[in-house]
Amino acid sequence: MADKKFNIVIVGGGPAGVVSAVTARRYYPDKKILLIKSVAEGVVPCGIPYMFNTLKKPEDNALGNAPLEKNKISILADRVTKITRKNKTVSTENSGEYAYEKLILAVGSNPIVPPIPGVDLKGIYPISKDMNYLKSMKAELDKAKNILVVGGGFIGVEFVDELSSRKGSKVSLVELLPHLLMNSFDEDFGKLVEDRLTAKGVQLLLGRKVEEFKGKNGRVSEVRLSDGSLIPVDTVILGIGASPNTKLAEEAGLDLGRGRGIWVDEYMRTQDPDVFAVGDCAGKRDFFTRKDLPVMLASTATAEARVAGSNLYQLKVVRENKGTIAIYSTYVDGLVLGSAGLTARSAMKEGFEVVVGQAEVPDKHPAALPGMNKIKLKLKFSKQSGIVLGGQVAGGVSAGEIINIIGMAIQKRVSATELETLQMATHPLVTAAPTMYPLVLAAQDAVGKI
Amino acid sequence: MADKKFNIVIVGGGPAGVVSAVTARRYYPDKKILLIKSVAEGVVPCGIPYMFNTLKKPEDNALGNAPLEKNKISILADRVTKITRKNKTVSTENSGEYAYEKLILAVGSNPIVPPIPGVDLKGIYPISKDMNYLKSMKAELDKAKNILVVGGGFIGVEFVDELSSRKGSKVSLVELLPHLLMNSFDEDFGKLVEDRLTAKGVQLLLGRKVEEFKGKNGRVSEVRLSDGSLIPVDTVILGIGASPNTKLAEEAGLDLGRGRGIWVDEYMRTQDPDVFAVGDCAGKRDFFTRKDLPVMLASTATAEARVAGSNLYQLKVVRENKGTIAIYSTYVDGLVLGSAGLTARSAMKEGFEVVVGQAEVPDKHPAALPGMNKIKLKLKFSKQSGIVLGGQVAGGVSAGEIINIIGMAIQKRVSATELETLQMATHPLVTAAPTMYPLVLAAQDAVGKI
Repeated sequence: MADKKFNIVIVGGGPAGVVSAVTARRYYPDKKILLIKSVAEGVVPCGIPYMFNTLKKPEDNALGNAPLEKNKISILADRVTKITRKNKTVSTENSGEYAYEKLILAVGSNPIVPPIPGVDLKGIYPISKDMNYLKSMKAELDKAKNILVVGGGFIGVEFVDELSSRKGSKVSLVELLPHLLMNSFDEDFGKLVEDRLTAKGVQLLLGRKVEEFKGKNGRVSEVRLSDGSLIPVDTVILGIGASPNTKLAEEAGLDLGRGRGIWVDEYMRTQDPDVFAVGDCAGKRDFFTRKDLPVMLASTATAEARVAGSNLYQLKVVRENKGTIAIYSTYVDGLVLGSAGLTARSAMKEGFEVVVGQAEVPDKHPAALPGMNKIKLKLKFSKQSGIVLGGQVAGGVSAGEIINIIGMAIQKRVSATELETLQMATHPLVTAAPTMYPLVLAAQDAVGKI
Repeated sequence: MADKKFNIVIVGGGPAGVVSAVTARRYYPDKKILLIKSVAEGVVPCGIPYMFNTLKKPEDNALGNAPLEKNKISILADRVTKITRKNKTVSTENSGEYAYEKLILAVGSNPIVPPIPGVDLKGIYPISKDMNYLKSMKAELDKAKNILVVGGGFIGVEFVDELSSRKGSKVSLVELLPHLLMNSFDEDFGKLVEDRLTAKGVQLLLGRKVEEFKGKNGRVSEVRLSDGSLIPVDTVILGIGASPNTKLAEEAGLDLGRGRGIWVDEYMRTQDPDVFAVGDCAGKRDFFTRKDLPVMLASTATAEARVAGSNLYQLKVVRENKGTIAIYSTYVDGLVLGSAGLTARSAMKEGFEVVVGQAEVPDKHPAALPGMNKIKLKLKFSKQSGIVLGGQVAGGVSAGEIINIIGMAIQKRVSATELETLQMATHPLVTAAPTMYPLVLAAQDAVGKI
């Protein structure tokens, strides 16, 4: 038996792990809680792109231990090698065994490294969440002349925006799909981003894929694309996504879902009632169809962590884990974009009959006020039910919270006619006019077509 | 009988009138619609304070006719003097009678001019929505040395902020209540505003009222306050609120509600099914208690206008006019503040048992990112029902839309536990971190106390 006993053991020190721990502390003030993390010095995951230019130094993006220490969570920097469910213990690489009553797996995901010839050459960087790794990656990028980012999802786009703000290197991006951000945005929004990046001098290579990385003296020097073109490079960043880290769970005999994440019920419990899984490693379901879906977002992860942390010993907080609405925002050269729920593509794929409402309005009123940005907003409604199924927005800083109004509307299944008479706060210097508030106008536009 | 016949006649050219007209056009494309406005050149009401410094010229705040013209609404600049319901006509000062099938009264409110001795002296300005009046007021203010604003509600506060950004005049504000913005905000938020204005050199005279305006050669020169002090002034702005303009309706035999606005049902119909009233002139009910309530906001007015405009001939859009949640935002020296629903004071007054949850977090993550502001957020929940009853927020630009997330939560009666596991979009450069999203933290704080 393990001589080190804790009530609650959390494996993983990212946002899902930390929020699980802090939530568990709130609900179970008397329990002994241990968090084990494999990366001694972690980073704020969504802040990674901004370690390369915007932040003064990479250390400004450290994911510190302060919230854990403040909440009296014990911290162990070690790697968990095994879960023994029968004995309710976890084994670590360097510090022996730890007993748990309740175990939360928040072990995250691994960056996908595609099996492309030459992918092991020096100078090719998958994105890891380790401070030391990222610091050495930054040192390389500071010397780079020709940078290629592989992947036009939000990580790739944010990296390219950040790197093209620095002087001295040429930045290119290659993406298989015909437009950027196509997994979360309709084409017209992707094009807005393409225009911004092209204007910054980024070379966009859309509708193409990498066939081979070629090297010189063991380091990448050239990339061959599917259209036959050869791009000279000295540094490559792989931003093509991540896969759930399920190794520990599988070895412990826990089931995976169809989306290859760890299977969990509505309360984030695996089939073992004493083992929970949250965040990137846990399976996700779609809000609309309940299908398994591979969505990895810190916002989903932290929501799951709060469900798990509060319900470890009893189901204290009765709720649905409603499934993910895949809500997120991104930023490109001053343009803020947000997406939630179904896109035109995913709606068509799932067979939803949708009506689209749109609006494009100034984000101040009168529009002559200094610093005005345009807000472009699109909502999708179910044609028969009239309920909002998705939304996308592009604009200034406020777009980052407008998408959260849409997110709440989706989660509460708000109808187009409800949105049409929404009561909202407006102010000349910070929002659109009450006569043309974009959510209301887009809803009206849709109602006119229903 | 009137020789000029229209299907729909709207009286009033402010936001409520314009949105009524445009909505009616959407729902009733074949009707002849006339809008009669008494002010030939109107202004965007909420933009008025910004005509005195921020906008390059007052004309930039003109409420143009473009949306009316685009929607083929006939426009008449004249004053309506009488409604004859029996004949279904309105009489105007200069252009005779107009027949209607459906009439919408959107005649707004009149600034309150308190019966203080000396209030008729020259140099004392109530705030009217007339471009020419405001231009002459601006000319006066440009010469002023000692300006006093009477009233510490949002109009007074916005005026004082704007005027104190200019050089050459001393600006003071007098308010009866002990803090600024007390009708919509708790004291701690009012204090934030007081600190900002004091730092800008504004003299705040709180907990005092004006007893007398004294004059010299017919122009105001001094103000005597309730504490006996004498303030030298040359220009005074009255920002103490407005009363519904109900004269026409009363003379036409239409009932008023207990709040002294024109009585209307859930669909904005007066007791005459062919006469509607919307905006400041119409009675408002409280969302929580259904009590009559004097709330005058463009957002409420435009929501009402959409209800009326769509339901003139048939009740096409079935919905509740849920009552006002009194949602609005304001701006003081870079600080954006929003309020919706109950405040501590109104909750106590109405007898609600509330639990308060609070959060104070950076609006970017990591907090080291340039341009970071703090967000201060407070939510009030019903102790037993767990439902959100009100919220207040202060922060950067994004606070202007955060209050609209809270507004939707109130309108959809969202509970604290739902908010605790809200899915929201976050991004390093535009929102708080997913681990400390302020709505979630404030809900958690409250749940801990329930």
